[in-house]
Amino acid sequence: MKALVYHGNGEKSWDDVPDATIVHPTDAVVRVDAVTICGTDLHILKGDVATVSPGRVLGHEAVGTVVEIGPGVQRVAVGDRVLVSCISSCGVCRYCREGSYSQCLGGGGWILGHRIDGTQAEYVRVPFADNSTHPIPDQVGDDQMILLADILPTAYEVGVLNGKLRPADVVAIVGAGPIGLAAVLAAKLLSPSHIVVIDRVDARLDIARKIGADITVNNADQDPAEVIASLTDGVGADVTMEAVGIPATFDLAVSLARPGGHIANIGVHGEPVTLHLEDLWIKNLTLTTGLVDTRSTPTLIKLVASQQIDTSSLVTHRFALSDIEQAYDVFSDAASSGALKVLLSNDAGVR
Amino acid sequence: MKALVYHGNGEKSWDDVPDATIVHPTDAVVRVDAVTICGTDLHILKGDVATVSPGRVLGHEAVGTVVEIGPGVQRVAVGDRVLVSCISSCGVCRYCREGSYSQCLGGGGWILGHRIDGTQAEYVRVPFADNSTHPIPDQVGDDQMILLADILPTAYEVGVLNGKLRPADVVAIVGAGPIGLAAVLAAKLLSPSHIVVIDRVDARLDIARKIGADITVNNADQDPAEVIASLTDGVGADVTMEAVGIPATFDLAVSLARPGGHIANIGVHGEPVTLHLEDLWIKNLTLTTGLVDTRSTPTLIKLVASQQIDTSSLVTHRFALSDIEQAYDVFSDAASSGALKVLLSNDAGVR
Repeated sequence: MKALVYHGNGEKSWDDVPDATIVHPTDAVVRVDAVTICGTDLHILKGDVATVSPGRVLGHEAVGTVVEIGPGVQRVAVGDRVLVSCISSCGVCRYCREGSYSQCLGGGGWILGHRIDGTQAEYVRVPFADNSTHPIPDQVGDDQMILLADILPTAYEVGVLNGKLRPADVVAIVGAGPIGLAAVLAAKLLSPSHIVVIDRVDARLDIARKIGADITVNNADQDPAEVIASLTDGVGADVTMEAVGIPATFDLAVSLARPGGHIANIGVHGEPVTLHLEDLWIKNLTLTTGLVDTRSTPTLIKLVASQQIDTSSLVTHRFALSDIEQAYDVFSDAASSGALKVLLSNDAGVR
Repeated sequence: MKALVYHGNGEKSWDDVPDATIVHPTDAVVRVDAVTICGTDLHILKGDVATVSPGRVLGHEAVGTVVEIGPGVQRVAVGDRVLVSCISSCGVCRYCREGSYSQCLGGGGWILGHRIDGTQAEYVRVPFADNSTHPIPDQVGDDQMILLADILPTAYEVGVLNGKLRPADVVAIVGAGPIGLAAVLAAKLLSPSHIVVIDRVDARLDIARKIGADITVNNADQDPAEVIASLTDGVGADVTMEAVGIPATFDLAVSLARPGGHIANIGVHGEPVTLHLEDLWIKNLTLTTGLVDTRSTPTLIKLVASQQIDTSSLVTHRFALSDIEQAYDVFSDAASSGALKVLLSNDAGVR
């Protein structure tokens, strides 16, 4: 089969690789019908995620059709259309029993396209298939569903829920890439009084307003601290979300939070940050980090099915799966392409 | 009257100052019967708290007797024996209405010995006296009560409650000074399975064990990470508390927390720390900072009155108030004096 293979040093290519097969009794093999590229994949190519070895098939988000199951699989059947979650979970370890699937000690967690071969391929082996896939309602198309594999639950759990967003809060989202925009969609669920989105790209801010941000700030031109101060009697935002993954945006997210506020880090970071505890120790702040557990995925699927969440603005480009290298170029050059999420459809036949 | 005045550059002296008087209608003047010195006062002398100006009377913890009240005071009467809390609260601002008294916007918060003259004096003006003092049960002596002005509520709220400590958790407390030891007393309330205390001074670790830590680690001799790993199947502590206020102990507290764990910073910091987000972004950690709100003070007073908390081990030295400069020497040279909390009693007559 064909797959997108990471070769280290920023290199990758669309290669022939051995077919995905059942290895453990609880595995399923899923034909990838639709897949996307995540900002995290770019972080891997940059070398920010040292746990990814050369030779690894990338990708941790897919919609697909089950083509084979191991003898231990109970809930998933051949022919099922499923969401392949970015998080696999054994379902029985200490962390899984608490719903903290991202920290699974039984061999799950974020493994696809990280510790085992991933979804940017014609087929993918999905471990713990009963726990690591979700059934898809008939009325929801691949375009919407693909965003539920990672970015929407990440924005909701790591941004909104970790940030303890409450109705009437003022929330500041730093970064209007796909994850920041997904955070706008997720934040709307909790009815904040203002959703402020900060980025340096006007085109992204336009989309942020279109999908629900009421205030956008291009921080190349305007000081976000002044905007937040004007909305909050000078106190600061109740919740801030860091949705980029570099020290400058982390600093900004911290600085915009009010005393007693929450800073939810969503970004994937490749280097340390400086935390100004000499100012912050006294401010009663809560800072959270996180990989998504995907425990909210069934909730979010219902909200998409009932059209209470509309993710259609986030898929900007479509490609055939075999053109994935071109898709990477478009996605990584978002500044000129305007790409948010790119959808790759597998139009090859089922084996 | 006499008071301990901060002169900048690490200098202080026991000086004649103008008498404390009623300034606002909600003020009370309290005769200081007992007062103590806080680690935060040493941070002020070190220059870590730039908001304290030379000329300031230090101190934010006292037990005393009300000698005068303003016309707006309703609940407190002349002659009442009261706890003067380290946090004053206007009671009506946005933060006070949520119980976040530390962040009071109405002129309260941590102001005593910080933004206004404090308790290391024969008398002290207490703003918002109705909200900033607590009545003292008859059976509780000054030795116990003085610890409820700051360190016990700080350890409970900023350590235990912010850290979301749960029964059966493993908690690691970094630092066995007064605040770390108070955290041991506070942690016991939530029935953790292990309370591990880490310090480099064996005498302090001895006290930690005496008051409820079941495991102590002198990290000059032993690697606390190994101890925590052996208790937690290699996963890490559920909750860690930083009770010192320097980068090295902050790093240690962060490193000992398990994925999904809580790091409660209690220490007063004078410089930035490095946060290794390149490792931590994926670990689902929650880091909290805080100044105590003292909203738990009534709860803790009940627990002391019912002898469910025994703070008697924490007061190690006693002085007359007029010997406060000597008391500072003993307290700041804890390595040789073994001092934890020093109690200063005012044996002068009531004016």
